[in-house]
Amino acid sequence: MRWPSSQAHIAMAVTCVLAPAPAVAGSTDDDRSAVFGVKLPAGYRDWQLISVTHEAGGLNGIRAILGNDVAVRAFRDGTRPFPDSAIIIRLAWQYVASAENNAVFGQAQSFVPGAATNVQISVKDSRRYAGTGGWGYGQFEDGKLSRSEALLGTCASCHDRAAKADDFVFTRYAP
Amino acid sequence: MRWPSSQAHIAMAVTCVLAPAPAVAGSTDDDRSAVFGVKLPAGYRDWQLISVTHEAGGLNGIRAILGNDVAVRAFRDGTRPFPDSAIIIRLAWQYVASAENNAVFGQAQSFVPGAATNVQISVKDSRRYAGTGGWGYGQFEDGKLSRSEALLGTCASCHDRAAKADDFVFTRYAP
Repeated sequence: MRWPSSQAHIAMAVTCVLAPAPAVAGSTDDDRSAVFGVKLPAGYRDWQLISVTHEAGGLNGIRAILGNDVAVRAFRDGTRPFPDSAIIIRLAWQYVASAENNAVFGQAQSFVPGAATNVQISVKDSRRYAGTGGWGYGQFEDGKLSRSEALLGTCASCHDRAAKADDFVFTRYAP
Repeated sequence: MRWPSSQAHIAMAVTCVLAPAPAVAGSTDDDRSAVFGVKLPAGYRDWQLISVTHEAGGLNGIRAILGNDVAVRAFRDGTRPFPDSAIIIRLAWQYVASAENNAVFGQAQSFVPGAATNVQISVKDSRRYAGTGGWGYGQFEDGKLSRSEALLGTCASCHDRAAKADDFVFTRYAP
């Protein structure tokens, strides 16, 4: 998997215009991510839990990874590569100390979600996204789409460094 | 809300025997928690996400809090006290550094679930559990019920210190 060169990048953008994802009632192309044409699926917050993480350092976020039925089934069954139409959603919030909890526990131990930061989405479509390991990416902040192609480039280039045996997905299922 | 005295404790245990929770097909009293008679509901791992936490210090756990439909609706709508039949489930795993992720990120930043430690469950029944704020508790390790009455006492006495306005629940909904 390689992040497309500038030329391929443009070609992929053109492909997205020529072959958009299936239309969703009430949706417009305005809410689809650059390059990949990925949209935030309705009802994603109700999806099943795959795992949780804490990313310390500069990110300083606490996160939950949810999936649609196709993705969750693949995680549970160990199916790799993920089947087409699998969608993985990563929610992130600021990682903040809970003064309320810590007062009860008598020590600084409890860290909880603060303000939501962003939602990242990975959509599997092995043909459409063949140039990026079969995955298309999007990022949404306050439910609004990020239009930064540079940012989406970092999605692909970072996942490119995950193991191919894991189908370029970092997350493991937490039982 | 007060954790019952030893005498009341015994009385409550007797009450549970006299007035067991509605039977679930295939279940026995052997898989119900001491004192409260709480059972691990089938399919709970598929429930919707309420929030995530990191409990540092001695607990050193990363956690997810899930809820059944009644609980999740109450969290989203801000309904307090929670309606009867609300169930909140807290899953916990060891908080471990991800060597794989950190190798990609180039620094020690990523913490993920290790081995599962235990599952705690809170069931709302304002009449049955009137002596403990309307909540009954259970803890399960590897899917097996903890039979420690002392441990269940710590559930109730700790939640007793959460705000009554929050219906003795620590968790806030993470949007």
